[in-house]
Amino acid sequence: MIKKVDHIGIAVNSLEQTLPFYTDVLKLSLLGIEEVDSQKVKVAFLKAGEIKIELLEPTTEESPIAAFIAKRGEGIHHIALGVTSIEERIADIKEHGIKMIDDQPRLGARGAQIAFMHPKSTAGVLFELCEKKGMKG
Amino acid sequence: MIKKVDHIGIAVNSLEQTLPFYTDVLKLSLLGIEEVDSQKVKVAFLKAGEIKIELLEPTTEESPIAAFIAKRGEGIHHIALGVTSIEERIADIKEHGIKMIDDQPRLGARGAQIAFMHPKSTAGVLFELCEKKGMKG
Repeated sequence: MIKKVDHIGIAVNSLEQTLPFYTDVLKLSLLGIEEVDSQKVKVAFLKAGEIKIELLEPTTEESPIAAFIAKRGEGIHHIALGVTSIEERIADIKEHGIKMIDDQPRLGARGAQIAFMHPKSTAGVLFELCEKKGMKG
Repeated sequence: MIKKVDHIGIAVNSLEQTLPFYTDVLKLSLLGIEEVDSQKVKVAFLKAGEIKIELLEPTTEESPIAAFIAKRGEGIHHIALGVTSIEERIADIKEHGIKMIDDQPRLGARGAQIAFMHPKSTAGVLFELCEKKGMKG
């Protein structure tokens, strides 16, 4: 089932330039920074109450995040829903006629299994399903 | 202080067309629907774990949500941060050089006092400050 919003993904040109707004002005706690090679991004996670904000900086021009910024500018990129049994969720969503970008889960940040729904099926919102097996937060 | 993400605002053309995706596919609970005259929107709140998803349908062409959809299409519109002492938060944010759209709080959905930051000051993200006095959730 879908448990909650796990995090909100935000596309930024530069973590270095943007992080001070989140840590010094909004005063959110930085949980960590890592690179996700499959998406060609460097990501920073910040704690915002029960959910997280994920800042995504493209590491190459081929990154999907670089393409997003080139088209729409920096800004909110996706909403990630924390789920259990991600394969069952994907099957259930497809049965409702919703198109998935990822028909099979793949590895995302923090070791999570992730799959994106197609925003043409969801009134323009890029939703990610996100399952963390045996992980906290 | 900033306590948490309170809700994520999503601009939609039609609540009637979009709600079934949220309630039947994502299986989120509908908390209520109301009109907010000041923003010329009809809003539906859905429970997504500890936070809420707010779907915003413009009620007239003069609605800021109608302008957003005309420019960018349907999709994620803003992130609302739950705060206490909203006037102090606005003053503190402005001291950091962040531009506010609303220098004074105004009435939002569900009786909340709200104020938006200017996305040009926040790397493209429309952040709302949102204070609920004496209200739950």
